[in-house]
Amino acid sequence: MRGMTRLEFPLSFDTPCVVIDPDVTERNLRRAQAHFDALGIAMRPHIKTHKLPRFARRQLDLGAKGITCQKLGEAEVMAEAGCGDIFLPYNIIGAAKLDRLRRLAEQITVSVSADSAATVDGYARHFGNAQKLLPVLIECDTGGGRCGVQTPEDALALAGQIDAARGLRFTGLMTYPASGKREEAERWLATAKAVLTGAGLPPTIISSGGTPDMWADHDASLITEYRPGTYIYMDRFQMTAGAATLEDCALKVMATVVSRPTPTRAVLDAGSKALSSDTLGLQGYGLITEHPDAMIRSLSEEHAVVDLPSASNTPAVGEVLSIVPNHACVVSNLFDDVYLVSGQEAEIVPVAARGRVS
Amino acid sequence: MRGMTRLEFPLSFDTPCVVIDPDVTERNLRRAQAHFDALGIAMRPHIKTHKLPRFARRQLDLGAKGITCQKLGEAEVMAEAGCGDIFLPYNIIGAAKLDRLRRLAEQITVSVSADSAATVDGYARHFGNAQKLLPVLIECDTGGGRCGVQTPEDALALAGQIDAARGLRFTGLMTYPASGKREEAERWLATAKAVLTGAGLPPTIISSGGTPDMWADHDASLITEYRPGTYIYMDRFQMTAGAATLEDCALKVMATVVSRPTPTRAVLDAGSKALSSDTLGLQGYGLITEHPDAMIRSLSEEHAVVDLPSASNTPAVGEVLSIVPNHACVVSNLFDDVYLVSGQEAEIVPVAARGRVS
Repeated sequence: MRGMTRLEFPLSFDTPCVVIDPDVTERNLRRAQAHFDALGIAMRPHIKTHKLPRFARRQLDLGAKGITCQKLGEAEVMAEAGCGDIFLPYNIIGAAKLDRLRRLAEQITVSVSADSAATVDGYARHFGNAQKLLPVLIECDTGGGRCGVQTPEDALALAGQIDAARGLRFTGLMTYPASGKREEAERWLATAKAVLTGAGLPPTIISSGGTPDMWADHDASLITEYRPGTYIYMDRFQMTAGAATLEDCALKVMATVVSRPTPTRAVLDAGSKALSSDTLGLQGYGLITEHPDAMIRSLSEEHAVVDLPSASNTPAVGEVLSIVPNHACVVSNLFDDVYLVSGQEAEIVPVAARGRVS
Repeated sequence: MRGMTRLEFPLSFDTPCVVIDPDVTERNLRRAQAHFDALGIAMRPHIKTHKLPRFARRQLDLGAKGITCQKLGEAEVMAEAGCGDIFLPYNIIGAAKLDRLRRLAEQITVSVSADSAATVDGYARHFGNAQKLLPVLIECDTGGGRCGVQTPEDALALAGQIDAARGLRFTGLMTYPASGKREEAERWLATAKAVLTGAGLPPTIISSGGTPDMWADHDASLITEYRPGTYIYMDRFQMTAGAATLEDCALKVMATVVSRPTPTRAVLDAGSKALSSDTLGLQGYGLITEHPDAMIRSLSEEHAVVDLPSASNTPAVGEVLSIVPNHACVVSNLFDDVYLVSGQEAEIVPVAARGRVS
């Protein structure tokens, strides 16, 4: 069943499985590209959500400047698939990975991030004698509390180190802003831009990201590129965040009712191996589109336990339901293959960049 | 690097990766087998934890009666690897899966569970003309609140249906007891056994499971077989439950410190794609063995954010740390390969039954 086979419709879904509507992804991609075109901000979509070469190429065809990958292994898959400009917003650490980065940089345009002198030292050691300079952006902690330099002054010090290193080129700033803290992030970045520009190291690129805030009226005089990921599929979290409607959700996990132990309990065959345990702060583990009032109360690896709002004979054992997961990206990482289903046509596609942990 | 290659030591771990100590797994397997041998209860280990044919075969070599798989896809892999007696404690639903089950049952000894008339009907339709009877156990909800018939009387009704169906053989009862509710589960099963025996349908097998309660003094006059899974690797949850010590934990996720944004924060390259988001009710997402007082506060897909107990320069960027995950089973499902490292020898082994979602 694996590969690019075109399938007969109706499909007999062997659940759990992932079904994606390519008409919805196309609409989502076009809408986002139009939004950023109108703002005058470059798109650099994050492929971690779909992990599929065809969608990465489509994002580029529609006008994206390049793509974003979180892992070298993902970037290697996407380079192989013809993507020529990849940003890795990650501190690439250790000789094994730096050797791979060097090889990748000899094939395509690669840029990376750094938030410490140790990371920059590693880049400089591996790129000091490279033909092409390695573009390095500084990761800034603008409120997200993950990686990143803590102050604009720290950014300036690191930019100086990058600028002075053989083989590297200081390119700009990047952040992954905390959801709902966009304005705080922009103030941080504006200050850093002023500090760097004043010191003769103006950032060429200022890169932000995140689907929840993507529809905001970003300031193109500050933000030069944006890295949304989830927008291609959307999910229950994005619906809750107001970034999407149910109609925008392109990815669904199909699951079969395997048990009806009580009149108010149903058990489905999609557990954490299909939906992941991600809650992203939400109650429950996904939206059952046929029973929106039902609550996926708990997951074990191969079971979802569902509370129905009242005693009911439906859904019955054997019924197949479609679930909008809390978080689409992690679902893509759990399936070797996904179904693309458009109208009367369906196709099974291997998730080429799944499981690229390093 | 993939396959049965024997590696040079010391390994240059390209993190995140999974390292397993086969000396510890061997000790864990032997100790558990001895425990159940002493009790006079058969072992039927659940392979979902390791998903590796070699460990399944080892469990059988050490005396297990058979193995347990949660999914048909796992059972197909294990049958291919030489396991001849597999129990699927799951309601197998739908023509596609029932056809696969029939094919598997023609190759090896397979037994299944059911908790509804609809599930039994499906088995009967697909096995009515089979050469061998399909052994069916009734799943009982003894307090776990997942699948299972709700009362011993419901078990009796279902046993009658199985007994009357062509192609099926009523074999007994199974439960996955809620952790800490072992005595409640045993009371339930004892009542059901009496009801069934009184009606002329005595259960031949009464199967229980779960690593947290495995060391208890199970009553062999009631429980005939036990299906522990996690005991081969153990994990942070089992340590907290008192079922294991740190020395019993055979599986660790190796991660590199990629950022030290503040004196009390470290960021590692093992996120939910490596550790999973499973908390199992614990605070934090794993135990960093080198820094047991540190707290893995949050995960995103490729980052773990760690709070250090006090300001410190260690761990430094580039250091490799080993993490005992909250839940070992889900980690096995996230990696295509694992390293087995014993003393000076190491080997990379593909996780053959990973990702078998259906």
